[in-house]
Amino acid sequence: MAERIELLRTLMRAKGWDAVVVTGSDPHCSEYPAERWKQVEWLSGFTGEAGDLVVTLDHAGLWTDPRYFIQAEQQLAGTGIDLHKTRVPDQVLIPEWLERQFGADGLIAVDGLCMGADFAQSLPGTVISVPDLLGPFWPERPAIPQTPVFTVNPGESRREKLDWLRAFLRGRECDGILLTALDEIAWLLNVRASDIEYNPLVISYLLVTQDDVCWYVLKDEVEDPESKATFSILESEGVRLLPYADIDYLPSELHGRLFVDAATLNYQLYTNLITAGVPLEEGTSPIRLRKAVKNATEVAGMRDVHVQDGLAMERFLYWLERSVDAGREITEWDAAVKLGQLRADLPGYRGDSFETISAWGPGAALPHYITPHAYAPVIREGGLYLCDSGGQYDRGTTDITRTVPVGRISALEREDYTLVLKGHIDLAMAVFPEGTHGCRLDALAREPLWRSKRNFGHGTGHGVGWFLGVHEGPLDVRQNLNPTVLQPGMILSDEPGIYREGRHGVRHENLLLVVEAGQNDFGRWLAFETLTLCHFETDALELSLLDRSEIEWLNAYHERVYRTLSPQLPREIADWLREKTRAV
Amino acid sequence: MAERIELLRTLMRAKGWDAVVVTGSDPHCSEYPAERWKQVEWLSGFTGEAGDLVVTLDHAGLWTDPRYFIQAEQQLAGTGIDLHKTRVPDQVLIPEWLERQFGADGLIAVDGLCMGADFAQSLPGTVISVPDLLGPFWPERPAIPQTPVFTVNPGESRREKLDWLRAFLRGRECDGILLTALDEIAWLLNVRASDIEYNPLVISYLLVTQDDVCWYVLKDEVEDPESKATFSILESEGVRLLPYADIDYLPSELHGRLFVDAATLNYQLYTNLITAGVPLEEGTSPIRLRKAVKNATEVAGMRDVHVQDGLAMERFLYWLERSVDAGREITEWDAAVKLGQLRADLPGYRGDSFETISAWGPGAALPHYITPHAYAPVIREGGLYLCDSGGQYDRGTTDITRTVPVGRISALEREDYTLVLKGHIDLAMAVFPEGTHGCRLDALAREPLWRSKRNFGHGTGHGVGWFLGVHEGPLDVRQNLNPTVLQPGMILSDEPGIYREGRHGVRHENLLLVVEAGQNDFGRWLAFETLTLCHFETDALELSLLDRSEIEWLNAYHERVYRTLSPQLPREIADWLREKTRAV
Repeated sequence: MAERIELLRTLMRAKGWDAVVVTGSDPHCSEYPAERWKQVEWLSGFTGEAGDLVVTLDHAGLWTDPRYFIQAEQQLAGTGIDLHKTRVPDQVLIPEWLERQFGADGLIAVDGLCMGADFAQSLPGTVISVPDLLGPFWPERPAIPQTPVFTVNPGESRREKLDWLRAFLRGRECDGILLTALDEIAWLLNVRASDIEYNPLVISYLLVTQDDVCWYVLKDEVEDPESKATFSILESEGVRLLPYADIDYLPSELHGRLFVDAATLNYQLYTNLITAGVPLEEGTSPIRLRKAVKNATEVAGMRDVHVQDGLAMERFLYWLERSVDAGREITEWDAAVKLGQLRADLPGYRGDSFETISAWGPGAALPHYITPHAYAPVIREGGLYLCDSGGQYDRGTTDITRTVPVGRISALEREDYTLVLKGHIDLAMAVFPEGTHGCRLDALAREPLWRSKRNFGHGTGHGVGWFLGVHEGPLDVRQNLNPTVLQPGMILSDEPGIYREGRHGVRHENLLLVVEAGQNDFGRWLAFETLTLCHFETDALELSLLDRSEIEWLNAYHERVYRTLSPQLPREIADWLREKTRAV
Repeated sequence: MAERIELLRTLMRAKGWDAVVVTGSDPHCSEYPAERWKQVEWLSGFTGEAGDLVVTLDHAGLWTDPRYFIQAEQQLAGTGIDLHKTRVPDQVLIPEWLERQFGADGLIAVDGLCMGADFAQSLPGTVISVPDLLGPFWPERPAIPQTPVFTVNPGESRREKLDWLRAFLRGRECDGILLTALDEIAWLLNVRASDIEYNPLVISYLLVTQDDVCWYVLKDEVEDPESKATFSILESEGVRLLPYADIDYLPSELHGRLFVDAATLNYQLYTNLITAGVPLEEGTSPIRLRKAVKNATEVAGMRDVHVQDGLAMERFLYWLERSVDAGREITEWDAAVKLGQLRADLPGYRGDSFETISAWGPGAALPHYITPHAYAPVIREGGLYLCDSGGQYDRGTTDITRTVPVGRISALEREDYTLVLKGHIDLAMAVFPEGTHGCRLDALAREPLWRSKRNFGHGTGHGVGWFLGVHEGPLDVRQNLNPTVLQPGMILSDEPGIYREGRHGVRHENLLLVVEAGQNDFGRWLAFETLTLCHFETDALELSLLDRSEIEWLNAYHERVYRTLSPQLPREIADWLREKTRAV
C-alpha cells in the first residue's frame, strides 16, 4: 500500500498538486462500487464500506465513521495512514481539514468520475478533475462489469413510470432528466442485472426527455440471450440504447433545461454539462422518494419472500443448534456457507443482498465484521453468535440479524441481549402521527439502552429496496436530522445493537413496513408491520428488564412466526420451533 | 376590525399595493411585543401569541399554529378574516400563498420595522418597507414603554462577557456586532427592566465594537433613580448611551465589518445598513447559545427560586382544594389572582413570567386559554382544573403546569391524566449521550400518548431564560428538526398534554436542567435534574398504565418535594402535602 501511495506522490510532485482526494465511490455515486472502483481499498487496504482517503505530500488519512473504527485501526496498522473519525463530536471533515492545511490556495486533484458533484464542490481551493486518476498505477485494474440484464414485474409498467416522471419534469419546466443513480435507473426501466455484487443493478446512465429515452449502457460485448431479449423489449417500447461511453456526447441530445441530482451526479459529468452550457435544474431526483414507497404488488412480494426467508433462517438456526449440541466444529465461515445454501434453494433466489456477517464472540463486536474464509473462528459454547444476512429474490429483498446464545452466557451478555431486544420491540410497536420524520423515532430504540448508559455507533434503521439495494434512501432512523417523513409503504430495518470490543456483540434486526393505523380526533396514525419472520431466543432473556407490553409483543410475534412457518417445515424443525416460540 | 381593514385597503388602492403583511412582532423580533406593536391584534382582534396577517384587496387571512386554532376560530368569527393553519400537513405559508396569488409580480407592503429581515426577504415580488405603516390609522396607539432599568448579578461581569464577545468577533474578522434581540442585550449588559409585560427587558439596540459600546436606549424622559443609577454604572464602565432613535445614524459609528443576526434584525434597519454600504457578516448571534447554557451562579439561583415557587404552588393547591371542599365559589380568575398574590409575597419576586392560564373543564382544552376577568367560569366538582403559571425572580425564572382533579373525574380524564404524566416522566428520566439534539428526545414524551393514538399540538419543551424570557432559544424539544444539541447547564420545560375540544385538557409541566451523568466505554452521558418542586395528584392516576420505573421516579420525586418544602410550610399544609406525596 505504502508503495502505491508513494507512486501517487511522485505524480503529485510532478503536477504540483497539494492533495489527492479518493472516495470509495463509482461514477454513479453508488454505496457499493464494483471492484474496478474500489480505489480506497486498493490504495489503503481498508475494506470497509464507507471510507475516503486524502493523500498529501506528508500525510495520508482515511475518514470513516464509528461502524468501521475498529476495522480501520486493524487494517491501517503499519500503512502510515492515519484514521480520521467522522460522526463523533469535534469531527473535522475532509473539506475543513484541507482548508486548515492549504487555506483557499490548495491545488486538490480528484478523479471527477468517482466523486459526487456535491462533494467536489464542497472542497476548498482549486479542484482539478482527472478521470481515472489512479489508472496509470493500476495495471491489473478490473474492467467495468457486464452481467445479463433481465426484466422484472413490480406492478407498474415502464410506461406508467415514464408518464409520471415526465409530468414531474413539466412541473419543474424541464425538458429532461439525467438519471445517474443505478437503482433509480433499474427502478424506472424495470430491469435488473448483477453488475455489482449483492446489488441487482445495471451500470449505465439514463436520459429521459419529453419524447425520448436514451440508455447509455455497455452493450458492445453482450452476447447472452437474456440481455438480448431485454434490450429488444426496451427498444420495442422506444428506449434508445447507446454505448456507455457516449455519455460524453450527452449535451448533443438535449433541447432544454435538464434536471440533475447533484448528490448522485459525478463531478466530471457535471463539469461537462456546465462547460457545454446546458441549463441545469438541480434538485433531488423524484424517483428517490417514489421508489421508497412500495406499491401493493411490491408489498405482497415482500411479505411472501419474508416467509421464504424465515424458513431458511429457521432451518439454519436448527442446524446450528443441533450441530453445536452434537459437538461438531462449525466455523463462522461454515455457518455462512450453510445459510447461503439454504437461501439458494428458495424459489426466485437471485443472490444474497450483502455479504453475510457470521461472527462468534469477539468478532461480533465489530458491527461490520468480515467473516474470514480461511481459519475462521469456531462457534463455541459460552458466547453469543451473531448472523446478519439477507437475500435478493425476484419479488423482494430481505435483511435479518439474529444473535443466539451458544451454551451458557454471562450475565452481561444476557443483559445486553435483552436490552437490545427491548429497544428493537419499542420501535417495532411504535404508533406515530402522519408526518413523523424517521429520525424522530430513533430514540425509542435507544432509550432502553441509554438508561443503563449503553449505545451503538450505527443507525437504527435504513430503507430497504424492492429487489434493489438493501440500503435505500431517502428514509432512515438514525442520529442525523433526516427530514424524510415516514409514509405507508415504506420499508425499513429495525436493528439496534450493543458492541463490546474484544468481548461480544448483540444485534437484533427485523424489517418493518409502515402501515396505516386509522384516524381519530388527533389526526391520522401510522404504525409498523413486522415483515421478518424468525424467532428470538427467549432463553437468553433477562425477563425482569422487559415490561408487560414488550412481553406481549414478543409472545404475539412468536405465535405468528410459528403459525406462519411451521406448516412448511419438516416435523422435527416445526416441533423445535414450537418450543422456541413458547410464550414467556 | 372590519373598518380598520377597509381603511388599510383604501391606502392599498391609493398606493397600488397588492398585499400588506403584518406580523405580530416588534422592531426587535420579540416573541412578546409591547402593546404598541400588537398590530395583528389591533387589526384582527386575535390575541394569540403567534399570528401573522395578510390583507389583499379581496382577502384577509391570519396564519397561526395548532396551539391557537380554537382561539383563532372564535376570535375571527364574523371579522371576515380567514384562518390559515400552520404546522399541519399541506400547510401553505405566507410566502408561498403570496406567490400563488401574485406570482413574482406582486407589490407587497410591510412595516419593515416590525418584520425580521429573514422573513421579509422570503416574500415574493417587490417588498416595500413602510415604517409604522399602520400609524396613520391608529390615533390611540400606545407609546414605546420606558420602565426603570436595574442591574443583576448572574455571576459573570459585563467585562467578562464583552471580552468573550470581542474574541468571537475577531475570530469572524468583524469589528463589531449589532445586537437587536432584547434578551441578548439584557444578558450582555446584566440589566433588566419591565418594558414588555412578563419579560424583564429594556427596549434598545446595542452596538459592540472592539473599542466601543453604544447603547441606543430611550432616556429622554428617564427620571427614576434606579435607571439613573444603572446608567451611571454603565457609563463608568465605558458604555455610551445614545437615544433609541439614533439607531438610524448607526452607520456613522462603524469602521469595519459588522456582524448581524438576520433572524432578529428588522428589515428596515437591514436595508439601511445595506444602502449605507456597511460590510455585513450574517450569522446566528453567539449570545443565543451562550446564554442558554447557565453558569453555576445561575443554576444555583434557579434551584433556589424553584424551592420558593414550589412553596407558593403548594399553598395555592392547598387553598384551592380546601376552598372547593368548603363549597366556596372560586372562579378561574379568583384562582389566578390568589396564585399571583402568593408569588408576590416571595422574596425577589419581579412579576409573573407570563399570563397565568387558569382553566377549568372545557377551557383547559385550549392550550393557550386566556382566563377572562369578568364572568370567569367557576371551578366546579366533576372536572379537571389546569393552571400554567410562572414567576420572574431576581435569581431566576419559573414555569409550571399542574392539572388537578376537582371532585370525581371520568375514566377518560383519568386515562389522559395518567398518559400525559407517563410521557412527562419518560422524558424527565431520559439518559442520553453527549451530542443529542433536543428534538430527538421529543418522541420519548409522546410515544406513551401515541400508543393509544393521542397527541398534542404544541412543543414538548422550550428553553427557559435566567430572569429573562420564559421562552428562550435556541434549544427546544419538539416536532421540528432543531439542530441544537443539549448541553449541561441548559434549562428546558417538559410539558406534554392532551386536549379534547369542549371537554377537558391535561398538561403536566416541570422545568429540567441538563446535567452530566458520567462517562464510560460508550461515551459521555447526560441526564435531567428536575428543578420544579410541586406534587402531582396521585388520586387521579390509573396506576396500571405506569410501569415500574415510572412509579419509582414518581415516588422518589414526591419524597424530594416533601422533604424540601415541608420544613418551610405551615404544619397543616405540610401534613396535607405528606398525604399528597405518599408513595403509590
